[in-house]
Amino acid sequence: MLKNHGKGVVLDRRLDNDTEPVTWLGLCELRIMNDRRWPWLILVPQRPDMQELHDLTPLDQAMLTFEMNLVGEALKKATGCTKINTGALGNIVRQLHVHVVARSEGDPNWPGPVWGHGTREPWPREDLYRFAEQIRASL
Amino acid sequence: MLKNHGKGVVLDRRLDNDTEPVTWLGLCELRIMNDRRWPWLILVPQRPDMQELHDLTPLDQAMLTFEMNLVGEALKKATGCTKINTGALGNIVRQLHVHVVARSEGDPNWPGPVWGHGTREPWPREDLYRFAEQIRASL
Repeated sequence: MLKNHGKGVVLDRRLDNDTEPVTWLGLCELRIMNDRRWPWLILVPQRPDMQELHDLTPLDQAMLTFEMNLVGEALKKATGCTKINTGALGNIVRQLHVHVVARSEGDPNWPGPVWGHGTREPWPREDLYRFAEQIRASL
Repeated sequence: MLKNHGKGVVLDRRLDNDTEPVTWLGLCELRIMNDRRWPWLILVPQRPDMQELHDLTPLDQAMLTFEMNLVGEALKKATGCTKINTGALGNIVRQLHVHVVARSEGDPNWPGPVWGHGTREPWPREDLYRFAEQIRASL
């Protein structure tokens, strides 16, 4: 289900509920998954009708690639993690979005995936703001 | 652990063990995960020293994006699946590789991820060849 999100852009209700805004990139809105178990960012291309990466135009694909890499590099720098996990699944939330997650040995479900594992643990609000600020500074 | 793979290119031993070759693209070798639970392809950029997407040069990133989308579209066409799941994790196999998986309602672990779920079930050899041929025809 899509919700009007200002500027005429819409955001799926579940994405809106589970994530918090960080910044606006060229193609994508960058959001934080509100789950303190992992440093977890989500790119939402401003193309609410798209479901698959290959549905994007070649120009949008190039921009998304650029922004994914920008965000992956910033997240690795900010967290010092072992490995970035990048994924576009969309089995539950169909609006196209890309996960960029910082993973380290011994984190919950390591070396398995973050998706579908246990229950989301919201950040303390202050820590969420601090993490968002750290990401903006690393971009 | 990397294994020499002809033409001086190396392939991680676990990737080599769990997957079978399909075809050679411009940047990537395209392989099938030998697991009949899901139609599952793997792109292996011929950059064996790279671990993260953002380590690639901009030109390689553009080529990888092109090949990921080509393969995603072909897999969706060949399988009629509900959703393509794309992921670059690398928590276990560090050599850079990208998963492109065809997912449909009711498949094993739907709508959760394929990674780390249960035990790989090898294809009957004849079906594996047929699937590889179907993918080559759809590219």
